[in-house]
Amino acid sequence: MLNHTETPATTGAATFARLESEVRSYCRSFPTVFKKAQNATLTDIEGREYIDFLAGCASLNYGHNDPDMKSALVDYIMSDGVTHGLDMFTEAKEAFLISFSERILKPRGMDHRMMFQGPTGANAVEAALKLARKATGRENVIAFTNGYHGVTTGALAATGNGSQRAGSRSQLTGVTRMAYDGFHGEGVDSAQMLDDMLGDTSSGIDAPAAILLECIQGEGGLNVASKEFLQRLSAIAKKHGALLIIDDIQAGCGRSGDFFAFEFAGIEPDIITMAKSLSGFGLPMSMVLVKPEYDVFTPAEHNGTFRGNNHAFVTARAALEKFWADDAFAKDIRRKADYLNQRLGAIAESYGFRVKGRGMMRGIDTGSGDKAAEICAAAFERGLVIETAGSSDEIVKVLAPLTISDETFARGLDIVAEAFETVLRAPARVAAE
Amino acid sequence: MLNHTETPATTGAATFARLESEVRSYCRSFPTVFKKAQNATLTDIEGREYIDFLAGCASLNYGHNDPDMKSALVDYIMSDGVTHGLDMFTEAKEAFLISFSERILKPRGMDHRMMFQGPTGANAVEAALKLARKATGRENVIAFTNGYHGVTTGALAATGNGSQRAGSRSQLTGVTRMAYDGFHGEGVDSAQMLDDMLGDTSSGIDAPAAILLECIQGEGGLNVASKEFLQRLSAIAKKHGALLIIDDIQAGCGRSGDFFAFEFAGIEPDIITMAKSLSGFGLPMSMVLVKPEYDVFTPAEHNGTFRGNNHAFVTARAALEKFWADDAFAKDIRRKADYLNQRLGAIAESYGFRVKGRGMMRGIDTGSGDKAAEICAAAFERGLVIETAGSSDEIVKVLAPLTISDETFARGLDIVAEAFETVLRAPARVAAE
Amino acid sequence: MLNHTETPATTGAATFARLESEVRSYCRSFPTVFKKAQNATLTDIEGREYIDFLAGCASLNYGHNDPDMKSALVDYIMSDGVTHGLDMFTEAKEAFLISFSERILKPRGMDHRMMFQGPTGANAVEAALKLARKATGRENVIAFTNGYHGVTTGALAATGNGSQRAGSRSQLTGVTRMAYDGFHGEGVDSAQMLDDMLGDTSSGIDAPAAILLECIQGEGGLNVASKEFLQRLSAIAKKHGALLIIDDIQAGCGRSGDFFAFEFAGIEPDIITMAKSLSGFGLPMSMVLVKPEYDVFTPAEHNGTFRGNNHAFVTARAALEKFWADDAFAKDIRRKADYLNQRLGAIAESYGFRVKGRGMMRGIDTGSGDKAAEICAAAFERGLVIETAGSSDEIVKVLAPLTISDETFARGLDIVAEAFETVLRAPARVAAE
Amino acid sequence: MLNHTETPATTGAATFARLESEVRSYCRSFPTVFKKAQNATLTDIEGREYIDFLAGCASLNYGHNDPDMKSALVDYIMSDGVTHGLDMFTEAKEAFLISFSERILKPRGMDHRMMFQGPTGANAVEAALKLARKATGRENVIAFTNGYHGVTTGALAATGNGSQRAGSRSQLTGVTRMAYDGFHGEGVDSAQMLDDMLGDTSSGIDAPAAILLECIQGEGGLNVASKEFLQRLSAIAKKHGALLIIDDIQAGCGRSGDFFAFEFAGIEPDIITMAKSLSGFGLPMSMVLVKPEYDVFTPAEHNGTFRGNNHAFVTARAALEKFWADDAFAKDIRRKADYLNQRLGAIAESYGFRVKGRGMMRGIDTGSGDKAAEICAAAFERGLVIETAGSSDEIVKVLAPLTISDETFARGLDIVAEAFETVLRAPARVAAE
Repeated sequence: MLNHTETPATTGAATFARLESEVRSYCRSFPTVFKKAQNATLTDIEGREYIDFLAGCASLNYGHNDPDMKSALVDYIMSDGVTHGLDMFTEAKEAFLISFSERILKPRGMDHRMMFQGPTGANAVEAALKLARKATGRENVIAFTNGYHGVTTGALAATGNGSQRAGSRSQLTGVTRMAYDGFHGEGVDSAQMLDDMLGDTSSGIDAPAAILLECIQGEGGLNVASKEFLQRLSAIAKKHGALLIIDDIQAGCGRSGDFFAFEFAGIEPDIITMAKSLSGFGLPMSMVLVKPEYDVFTPAEHNGTFRGNNHAFVTARAALEKFWADDAFAKDIRRKADYLNQRLGAIAESYGFRVKGRGMMRGIDTGSGDKAAEICAAAFERGLVIETAGSSDEIVKVLAPLTISDETFARGLDIVAEAFETVLRAPARVAAE
Repeated sequence: MLNHTETPATTGAATFARLESEVRSYCRSFPTVFKKAQNATLTDIEGREYIDFLAGCASLNYGHNDPDMKSALVDYIMSDGVTHGLDMFTEAKEAFLISFSERILKPRGMDHRMMFQGPTGANAVEAALKLARKATGRENVIAFTNGYHGVTTGALAATGNGSQRAGSRSQLTGVTRMAYDGFHGEGVDSAQMLDDMLGDTSSGIDAPAAILLECIQGEGGLNVASKEFLQRLSAIAKKHGALLIIDDIQAGCGRSGDFFAFEFAGIEPDIITMAKSLSGFGLPMSMVLVKPEYDVFTPAEHNGTFRGNNHAFVTARAALEKFWADDAFAKDIRRKADYLNQRLGAIAESYGFRVKGRGMMRGIDTGSGDKAAEICAAAFERGLVIETAGSSDEIVKVLAPLTISDETFARGLDIVAEAFETVLRAPARVAAE
Repeated sequence: MLNHTETPATTGAATFARLESEVRSYCRSFPTVFKKAQNATLTDIEGREYIDFLAGCASLNYGHNDPDMKSALVDYIMSDGVTHGLDMFTEAKEAFLISFSERILKPRGMDHRMMFQGPTGANAVEAALKLARKATGRENVIAFTNGYHGVTTGALAATGNGSQRAGSRSQLTGVTRMAYDGFHGEGVDSAQMLDDMLGDTSSGIDAPAAILLECIQGEGGLNVASKEFLQRLSAIAKKHGALLIIDDIQAGCGRSGDFFAFEFAGIEPDIITMAKSLSGFGLPMSMVLVKPEYDVFTPAEHNGTFRGNNHAFVTARAALEKFWADDAFAKDIRRKADYLNQRLGAIAESYGFRVKGRGMMRGIDTGSGDKAAEICAAAFERGLVIETAGSSDEIVKVLAPLTISDETFARGLDIVAEAFETVLRAPARVAAE
Repeated sequence: MLNHTETPATTGAATFARLESEVRSYCRSFPTVFKKAQNATLTDIEGREYIDFLAGCASLNYGHNDPDMKSALVDYIMSDGVTHGLDMFTEAKEAFLISFSERILKPRGMDHRMMFQGPTGANAVEAALKLARKATGRENVIAFTNGYHGVTTGALAATGNGSQRAGSRSQLTGVTRMAYDGFHGEGVDSAQMLDDMLGDTSSGIDAPAAILLECIQGEGGLNVASKEFLQRLSAIAKKHGALLIIDDIQAGCGRSGDFFAFEFAGIEPDIITMAKSLSGFGLPMSMVLVKPEYDVFTPAEHNGTFRGNNHAFVTARAALEKFWADDAFAKDIRRKADYLNQRLGAIAESYGFRVKGRGMMRGIDTGSGDKAAEICAAAFERGLVIETAGSSDEIVKVLAPLTISDETFARGLDIVAEAFETVLRAPARVAAE
C-alpha cells in the first residue's frame, strides 16, 4: 500500500503536518494519534480503541507488546544490559544465536549461518544480493513482477513498484525482471519461460548470480507462488548456477503457517532474508541466513552501525522460546488461516470478488483502488486499522497479529464485512455513481 | 575500521564462530562476551570492566544506558506505549518532533522538515540522494575521497572504502569522486578544483544534483573539512545549482562540540543526514532534515518498515531535553575536546606522529596499520576498547562518550599512552624489527 | 554467426595470423585469400571461384561490384568529387537525399528525416536509442531475445549474444529484454506478455522510451516476426507512449521482398535504422530515419567523423535509381525467395529439419552447431561461401545477393544439398559417430 | 567544435533543410554545396574555391584526393577487387598489414597486433576499452577533462563534452574523470593527483583497467600533454596495473610531427586507437593496435560489418608507402608546424591571445566562443574553411592538410589574420559593442 490521499486530521496531527516530511503515508489513512497498544488493539490519545489488521505490515506477528517479551526486555534494560554493541559479542546475542539455531535451523535440517547488517529488510536484501554476486562472480539477478524488496538502491532495483522506482531509474541496474507465478494468467508457465531464457545463450539475459523472490508477495498484491513454482525455480537456479534467495521478510516468522514461507515446498534456499517480525516486538532487526559455502564476505566487507541491536536480540529470543519450541503455534496459525479464508471467501463471493493470498496473509481483490480505499476508510470509522495492497491498491488486505484472539479476529472481520457492505451496497452511493 | 585479523577468542566466543557469518568484525578485535554497560564502562561475562573509547562508533555520545533515558524508556514500555508504528502518528513521535524543533532547529534558525525512513544511516543517505536527484532533475552526486556513507548500493556509490566497494563495483553509479579538503596535501585547493571542474562544460563532470560530505571523516581517517572549505563548497553548490548535503551521522549530535558539525562554519546545508547518536541510547534511528522547498517526495515514495521506532523517539527526546536545553553540554564537550587534544598531542609528539580530527573525534596517525592494530590490542589487554581508522587503519582513534567522567577519560588516555609505549618502545620489538 | 574454430590456412593466410588480432573470425571458416568479386562470385588469389551465399552478411544485396555503381563511383573519383565531407553539403549527398526521398519515402507515404552518423549499423542504433530517450524523457528500451543490434556499448545492451555481452556486462544498462515472437513456442503470446508487463505499474518494467526490434532476426537465428506481432507491437508502443524502432539494418534494402522489412505489416515505425546494403556497393554507410516530430537532436548533439562518406552516397544513389525506380526488382526478389524456400524445404524435409526465415533470408535449422559447421565447411570445399546463424550456430543460412543469376543460385543450392548429404548421410561419419 | 548557429544558406542548401535531420552541424557554418576537392582546396557548385583548414577534422592529413591514392583506388575498383569482405582474408588487406608492419611498427620497435572493427574512431575506442577491461578483469577507466573519444555509449562515457553527454547521462558508467595536464593551471600536478587517488585504497576510485587519453586534445581545446605527463602516466599505469591507451585518432598519422603523437615521449602504450587519417583518403577506417599479451578477444567477441573496408586498405597502403617510407614527410611537417606556430604567434600576440596545441594542430584562444565564431565566419567569406574548438568553442583552430603547399598555407594564414583584424579591430563593431 503506497499511495494515500490525505484525510482531514484530528487536532493532534497538526504537529506532524508542520514538522514532518510530506513523504509520510500511513498516517494519512489513519489520522489519529496513537498512544498505547496491546496484542491486536491500538488505543489513541482520546482513548478510542482500534483492532489492528495491519500489524506493522506483518512486523507484529506476535501482537503489540507481548507481555513475556516486554518483561524480558524491561529486565534486560533494568540490568544495564548492553544496548548497542556494534557486532561485538554480547550475552544477549549469543542467547539469540543459540535459540534460533536450536528452535528453527536444526529442526529443519538447515545449517545456514546468521549474518547481521543494518536492521532493516532492505539492508538484508542488499547484503544477500552482494553475497550472491560475490559467491558466483556474476552480476545479474532475476527478480519478479510485483516483487517488493525495499527502497535502498540495490534492493529497489529488484522492487517492482513504479512510483518508488521512478526517482532512481538510472541507478537501478543488475536486475532482470521475469513474470511471477500466474502473472500472465492461466496457461502461461512463468517458470518454463525463465528456463527458456536462461537456456538460450543469445537470449540477452546474462547468467544470473541469483533468483530472488517472495513466496507470497505482500505489497505486490498477495500473489502466491505455488509449491511447484518454488520447486521448479529451485531446480532452475541449480541448473543455471544461480543461488536461490527467498525474501521471507514479510511472509516469514509464521505468517504463512510455517516459520518460513517456503517450508511447504520442501526447498532449501541458499540465502534467506528476514526482518519485520524477527525481533518479535516490532524492534528493528534483520538477518540474512546463508549456507556456509556462500558465507563469502571477509570481515566488515558489509557492515552497519545498528547490526547489534541487543534489545531486539532479547525479544527475538523470547519470541522463539515462547512460540516455536513446539508446533502448537503453527497449528493455531493454520486454524486461524482457514477461518480467515472462509470469512473472506464469504464476503468476496457476495460481490463476485476473489480472495488472494495464503496463510494469515490474505485479502479480497476489489478490482479498484478507489473502492478498496473507501472500504478501508469505512473500516477505520468503525474502529479497524486495515490497508490495501496491489499494483493499483485494489486489494483489501488482512494482516492481523497471529496471536489475535478468536473473538477479536471475528469482530474485525465483521467490520470488514460491514465496510464492504457500506461501500458497495449503500443505495446513496450507488445513486451517486 | 574495517579489516581485522582474528585474535584467539575466549570460550564464550565459540558460539559465534559456529553460528554467525564470517563478516563479523569488531568482535575479532575485542574477543570477549560483553554483558553490561554503564556510561563509558563495558563489563564482560567474567566481570571484567573496560573503558569504552569506541562508543558504538559514535552511536553512544551520551554513554551506555543513560539513567534518565533508561527510565523514560522503561516507563514507556511498561505503559504499553506503541513500539512499532510504521509512520502512523504516535504520542511519542509527536513529542520527539516538538522537542527536536524547539531544542535544535528553532534556536539555529532552521526550518528543515524531518523525514524518517529505515532507521540506519545508510537509509538516510539513500533517501537524501534520491531527494536531491528528484529536486534537481539531475543524477550526478559529488562525493569525496575517504568519505563514508554506508554500504547499501546507493550509499556505497558515495563511500570510498575499496574493500566494501569491490563486490558491487558495477552497481555503483551516479557519483563523481573529488578530493576532500587537504587530500592532495598543502597547497592544492580542493574546493577550487571542484569549481574548475563544474565550471567547464566539457570537463566530463555532469551537472550535479548534490555535493555530499562529512565535516569530519570518521572511517576515512579523521580528516577535517576547514571552515573555509565548507563555506566554499556551500557557495559552489549554490553557484552550480546543486544541493549541499551534510552527512552528520557520525560527527553530529555534539561530537564536534556543537550539535551539528557544520555549525562552526555558519553554513546552511539543504539536506542533513542523522543517525548513530540521534536516539541517544544506541537504538536504531535515522532522520533526514530537508529544507521545505526540497521536501519533494510524494507520500510513500520512499519508505521503510521501521521508520517509526517509537522506543527511539522516547530516548531521543529524553536526550534532547537533558543535554540540549541549554549550552552547558556543548561547553563541556569543548572542554573535554581540548583536554583530549592536549593528551593526544603529547603522545603523538614523543613519536613524531600527528593528531588528526576535531572536537571529541580525534586520533593519532601512526603511519602504519600494523602498528595501530598492535597498539589497540595492547590497550584492550589493559582494559580499553579502542579502534583504528583511515585507509590503512593507521590511526588510533578516540571516540569516547561525550558524557565520560574526567577521571575515566584520564584513565583511558593513560592506557592509550601505555599502549603506545609498549608497542613502540619495547626493546625486544625494536630488535625484532 | 560468431564462433569459429580455426581451419588450417593456405600459405597466404600466415600474414594474418602473425599481424592481425585473434578476434578475426569469418576468415577462419574461409581460409583463403580473396582477390576479386563480381555479383555472386568471389575469386581467390589462386583463381578459384566461390559462389557467395554470405554476401557480406547482407551488405551486398546488389552483389559485388555492380557495374553501374562501379562506373558512377569511378567517374566521381576521377572528377575529384569530395570524398570526405564531414556533414557539409555536397552535391553527391544532395543527390542521394533527393533520390531516397523520391524513390523510397514518398511512394510509401513516409516523411521521415534522414540522419547520418558514424557509418556503421551500431552507430545508427546508438543514435536511434538516444533520440528515443531524448524525445520521450525515458530511459528504458524494450529489446528482444536473440536480437542483434551491434557491439558498441549502447547497442550491445540491446543485443542478445552472450559471448559478446560477457565482457561489458556491467555497462549494459537501460534495456529490458522481452520474448520475441515465438520465442516461448506455440501458444505463448509474446506481444500480450509485453502489454501485460507495461500495463502493470508495479511490474518492475520502467516505462519505455522505445521498443526496438528486427523484423527478421539475422544473427539470432532467422526468427521471423509475424505481421500480427508487428502490428501489435506498433499498437503497444503507441498505447504506452514508446517509440517503435525497427532495426532494418540486415533485413532492409529488399532482403525481405520489400524495400523495408516491415512494409508487409502496414506499420509506420517512428524510427528506422539502416546500414549494410544501404550504400549498395558494400561501402560503410548508415542512416537513421526519424519522424520529424522526433528529430530532436540539436546540431552536433550526436556526430561522427565519417558521417559524410560521399563515395557511399554516390553508389547508394546509383542503387536506388537502378533497382527501386519501379517494382520489378521487388517482384524478382519474391520470385527467387519462393524458389529458395522450395529448394531449402526439400533439403530440410529429407532430414526432418525445418526452414526458418522470410524472403531471401532463410536457412535450415539443423539443431546442432557442430553439424551446421561441418555442412558449411563441406560447402566451402565445393566452392560455396555460406555461414551459420542462431544461438548455437545451428542454422545453415542462405544470404545470397538478391541479384544472383538463376543459374548460379541453383548451382549454389545444389552444393548446399550435397553438403547436407555428405555430412549427414556419409556412412563413415555415421560409423565414427 | 560542436555548436553552430544557423547561417542563411544558399539555394542549394534547401534540400538539406527539408530532408536531413536537424543534427547536421558543420554545414551550418559553411553554407554552400561543395562539389570537388584537391589537396587543400575545396570547390563549390558555383565554382568558388576555398582553402581547407579543417581537413575533415584531421581525417585528410594527406589532403583531398591525393593522386597516387586515387590512382591505386581506381585501379583496384576497375579490376573488381573485393570491396566488402567482412573480416575475410583479401589481397588488399594483406598488403596493408604488411605495409603497416614494415613502415610503422617495425621501425619503432613495436609488435602490436592490428585489430579491425566498425570503421569509426568510436568503434575503435569501444573495442579498446572492452579489451582493457577483459585483460585486467577491472571495469573502471580513467579518462580526462576535455577528452573526446566519440559518441557511442561506451566511448561517450569517456568523452567530456556536456552537450553530447546530456542525453545519455545514466548510461555513461565505468569511467572516472581526472584532470588533464594543466587543467587546474600552473602548479597543480595532475599526474601526481591521479597517483594519490589510485594509491589510496579508500579514495573511492576503483582500481582501473585503463588510463585513456589523447596526447593533444583536438575537440577539447588543443590542450597538450607534456612529455613528462605522458611518461608519468605510463609509469602510473604500470604501477597500478592498468593499461595505457593512447587515443591517436585525431593527433596520429603525422599530425603531431611524428606518425604517432606519443613518440616524442618515448612511451609504449599498451593499446592505441587510430582512425580519421588512417585510410589516407578520407575513407572510413579504424584500427586498434594492441600488444600481443592483451590481444585477448576470442574470435568474433567484438565485430562489425564494415571492418573489412578494402577500398580503405588500398588507399591506406598507398599513403604509407608514399609518405612513411622515410622521414622526409615527418621533417616537412615539423617545418610547417614551426611556420604555423610563428604565424599564429604573431596574430595572437597583437591581441593578447595565446597559441595552443602542438605540431600541425594549433590554434588561437580568443577567450570567447562568439568572437571565435565571428572570426571563422569572416574567414569563410574570404574563402577559408576553418573551425573552432574548446569547451566554449573559443579557439580558432588550424587543421590544414599536412601536404598543403607553402603558398596555399601562407594564403590561408593571411586570411586568418584578416579575419581576426576584421572582427577584433573593425571600428563599427567596437562601437556596436
